[in-house]
Amino acid sequence: MTTVPDKERLPAQAGFVVEIDKLKRVLRRNTLMDGSRRENDAEHSWHLGMMAMVFGEYAPEGTDLDRVIAMLLVHDIVEIDAGDTFIYDTLAVELQEKAERAAADRIFGLLPAGQTATLRGLWEEFEERRTPEARFAKALDRLAPMLANHHNEGGSWVRHGVTARQVMEKVQIIREGSPALGDYAAELVRLSVARGHLTPA
Amino acid sequence: MTTVPDKERLPAQAGFVVEIDKLKRVLRRNTLMDGSRRENDAEHSWHLGMMAMVFGEYAPEGTDLDRVIAMLLVHDIVEIDAGDTFIYDTLAVELQEKAERAAADRIFGLLPAGQTATLRGLWEEFEERRTPEARFAKALDRLAPMLANHHNEGGSWVRHGVTARQVMEKVQIIREGSPALGDYAAELVRLSVARGHLTPA
Ligand SMILES: [Ca+2]
Repeated sequence: MTTVPDKERLPAQAGFVVEIDKLKRVLRRNTLMDGSRRENDAEHSWHLGMMAMVFGEYAPEGTDLDRVIAMLLVHDIVEIDAGDTFIYDTLAVELQEKAERAAADRIFGLLPAGQTATLRGLWEEFEERRTPEARFAKALDRLAPMLANHHNEGGSWVRHGVTARQVMEKVQIIREGSPALGDYAAELVRLSVARGHLTPA
Repeated sequence: MTTVPDKERLPAQAGFVVEIDKLKRVLRRNTLMDGSRRENDAEHSWHLGMMAMVFGEYAPEGTDLDRVIAMLLVHDIVEIDAGDTFIYDTLAVELQEKAERAAADRIFGLLPAGQTATLRGLWEEFEERRTPEARFAKALDRLAPMLANHHNEGGSWVRHGVTARQVMEKVQIIREGSPALGDYAAELVRLSVARGHLTPA
């Protein structure tokens, strides 16, 4: 750490900070929990960071929760260029991957080299889902829209005709990051089916 | 850490996660950097967390950046009940403090006791501005709208007739958290005066 910035360094960092303001205009499929409008990626990322703090005890022992939080704040930034993809559209998910790598090159590349590597590394770690931190972060990312839909009469599940079977695939991803949160998510699915917000098939 | 949640604990935590969704509907005075709409507290908090990661090297040596990030994610949650106050309105700031303490009691009180203490502690630490972490977090909170206004032709400075002298008081708060970011903020003020986005007096 230093308090004497190199002349080039701080303006480059500020340029990145200004650029990522655009994440506030990338809209997701789900709405806020009151249904009033669609959620954007920036506020979603904040909510996930808070979920990591609050649900941290359900991560596997030894999980570095600070890295989970950093990963969650960074994980959607590539969508500034690549947009959001609804997670039940398999073809779009594949095309998305190319676009996201190009976006990562451009956006994280605005930073000084060391920070480019750090932030891109967090994004890649999240995507690869090989560390306990990444698996827990992904679990929270999958749990969040389930909580939102559950608290908003089915929300995007109802609008897009999603089935309980499709959601249970996401529950499996949650379980891989946190068995306790997986159980909780499965319970939300059961309740949503019982209320008619998810079709059982 | 445990993967076996107490029956009461996880639903209480989920209740808190659902409650803080409301922060996405608390609007600030400043707009997004493109001027398209007002910014909300949740996306603002995400942006500050990212700023802590990117500008972390300008914090005093030994600053715990992970605690800075946690503090920034939590710092505005009380505004769910207490609303946002424009930082140049001194009277409102005083009335605000009472409302914010009541809000902290209610909202953080939704969590299990240990977490209530942790999150409320982070909020109080931020407000008291006695630790290097809190001073750096506050510096970023003050720098963010300056960056936004600077990149949006004066933004809320122009709309509310704010003067360079008023903004320089905020620059002092930034300097107390980070001398380098204070210098940078002072430079933004000089540029904004030169461009006619801030009146010199
Ligand atoms: Ca604030």
